[in-house]
Amino acid sequence: MLAAPAYTTGSSAVYNFAAGPGTMPGEVLCQAREELLERGRSGMSVMEMPFTGEAFQTIQRQAVQDLRELLDIPDRYQVLFLQGGASAQFALLPMNLLPHGGRADYLDSGYWSRKAMAEGGRYARIRVAASGAAYGYRCIPRQAEWQLDPEAGYCHITSNETADGLAYSWLPDTDGVPLVADMTSDFLSRPLAIERYGVIYAGAQKNIGPAGLTVVIVRDDLLHSARPETPSVFNYRIQAESEGRFNTPLTYAIYLAGLVFRWLKRQGGLSAIAARNRRKSERLYEAIDASQRYVCRTRQEDRSPMNVCFDLADASLTAEFLAQAQQRGLLHLQGHPARGGVRASLYNAMPEQGVDALIEFMRDFAA
Amino acid sequence: MLAAPAYTTGSSAVYNFAAGPGTMPGEVLCQAREELLERGRSGMSVMEMPFTGEAFQTIQRQAVQDLRELLDIPDRYQVLFLQGGASAQFALLPMNLLPHGGRADYLDSGYWSRKAMAEGGRYARIRVAASGAAYGYRCIPRQAEWQLDPEAGYCHITSNETADGLAYSWLPDTDGVPLVADMTSDFLSRPLAIERYGVIYAGAQKNIGPAGLTVVIVRDDLLHSARPETPSVFNYRIQAESEGRFNTPLTYAIYLAGLVFRWLKRQGGLSAIAARNRRKSERLYEAIDASQRYVCRTRQEDRSPMNVCFDLADASLTAEFLAQAQQRGLLHLQGHPARGGVRASLYNAMPEQGVDALIEFMRDFAA
Repeated sequence: MLAAPAYTTGSSAVYNFAAGPGTMPGEVLCQAREELLERGRSGMSVMEMPFTGEAFQTIQRQAVQDLRELLDIPDRYQVLFLQGGASAQFALLPMNLLPHGGRADYLDSGYWSRKAMAEGGRYARIRVAASGAAYGYRCIPRQAEWQLDPEAGYCHITSNETADGLAYSWLPDTDGVPLVADMTSDFLSRPLAIERYGVIYAGAQKNIGPAGLTVVIVRDDLLHSARPETPSVFNYRIQAESEGRFNTPLTYAIYLAGLVFRWLKRQGGLSAIAARNRRKSERLYEAIDASQRYVCRTRQEDRSPMNVCFDLADASLTAEFLAQAQQRGLLHLQGHPARGGVRASLYNAMPEQGVDALIEFMRDFAA
Repeated sequence: MLAAPAYTTGSSAVYNFAAGPGTMPGEVLCQAREELLERGRSGMSVMEMPFTGEAFQTIQRQAVQDLRELLDIPDRYQVLFLQGGASAQFALLPMNLLPHGGRADYLDSGYWSRKAMAEGGRYARIRVAASGAAYGYRCIPRQAEWQLDPEAGYCHITSNETADGLAYSWLPDTDGVPLVADMTSDFLSRPLAIERYGVIYAGAQKNIGPAGLTVVIVRDDLLHSARPETPSVFNYRIQAESEGRFNTPLTYAIYLAGLVFRWLKRQGGLSAIAARNRRKSERLYEAIDASQRYVCRTRQEDRSPMNVCFDLADASLTAEFLAQAQQRGLLHLQGHPARGGVRASLYNAMPEQGVDALIEFMRDFAA
């Protein structure tokens, strides 16, 4: 019998461990449901509101303001709500930051940094400053191994590797070269030293809101380098100058993200969320390490708190493990297709009871 | 006293005449509300579903299938659900269709075709095949006035000018040059002869669903011309080959669009919708023409059935007209900022009672 989740999302108590789109806070979904036909006394759903009207603009401004407060974002950084997801930014980032093609350093830490490089490499001369390939992507290369190009336009990292279950537990020093981070899968999971970054970008579908919405936080001095072929709607400067309303924004997704930001504040902000996230992942990694039946080969200090990837010692039991988990309401635990095995994504909205339920199942299955 | 709308969207009976995002079918919003916490027996909201899983893919395939049936789309056309809205397509279209820059013809029929040209002109040598400028954008230039370039890569029209209240009542003949249409504001308002077009694209926020979702219907032979700088997620061929899941799609918006497609089928399909749309707009244009207090200067045959734009004969009364309309629950009737005056958008979801209520108010105000 499962512990009931804080907010059950329907008829059965299930926990959704999907890597994204993934579980959303129950409180947020309940409020969205409450307001779906009419927001406040507006006479309409948020998705029916003209984006040029006061009602929506109030929602948008509040969302930006709440995000700024949550992350303590300095005034010299712009907060943009764009479209297309992180995969679009793989191309749009060099378009925006490297006016003449130019060079960029990329840290190859796993599946998603390789995707960023493959796409970014069509717009810039990319150098791999360090790679986890030689380690089978079981660790993040330490700073001492990095070979940085002081002339690079930027240095790109993937702060959390969703498919490989890796994350940086430290902040790289790029010696003045703008640090750019794809934070899609750990954005808002902990406080950030924003001023150490040039650009942070994140697709929404993990910790922010529904898929498609893309948050870009960019330092003012990096707004003015876009290549002429950058489509205007994806030009950081143009969107910053028009408060993200150069074209019709993702109105409903911005509203939902705003509800998530409010929920995060009610949880006590990002320090409180980070402490809870640490408890969740540490408990699960401990259960894996304590058992002979499960193996996590990732270097201890580089283990992702968001995406706990592990294998069954007897890999032939993986399918049975996943099938039984599903019967217990523990959903979408299969590893990324490129990696296989098991992956439990523990985003902000995953309650601690979900982790307890998974650990309980793992013990039962092992026995 | 207003006639109650078929589905009231909350505590007060209001009609939302916004040009988009605009009113959505009440039945669709009710179903979305019903399923917001859990879709079927999935244990989760659609926005929590992994896009690689069977549950979401079933939703996506059904939406594509329903759209194909509604529009009778031939097999040799791909249906893509992309991101970024029509304004993104202004750039992505020439990127996808003109491999070496090349030439394209554009019909200048109003505000939005000029926007398409301004952005498209950064990627192609654009020729204006005909312009409504000399007519003050009060009509669509007739085919006899068009000067077509037989070597153009495509010929671009804006099938409905949302800001100017103009629409094509006829289908241009481009003599073998692929006809490309921005149909953002009249897509799904009537049946289409798809096979006469090379590409049709439309932002969702009028007749399809929530803002951001972008439908692109493209003929197979036009899939293979993308310029190398086209971002992969916006490359028609790449998205067609991966069934629109090259990156995380707009899962929740696709689900909502699917609900709209089902609603359209229940209305009797696009012929029935077109008949209702004709009744709505004809009734309103008649009321305008019959009154000394209101003026519509648009040429009769080019008047948009979707966006009825008109002026008060005494323009100094416009603000008062809009304020009193709002008090009667007739919302967002102000004209586009570039044009002023009054604009009543009569998208599919606007019930006939909404038009009756507006006409009744216009009579009261005139008296």
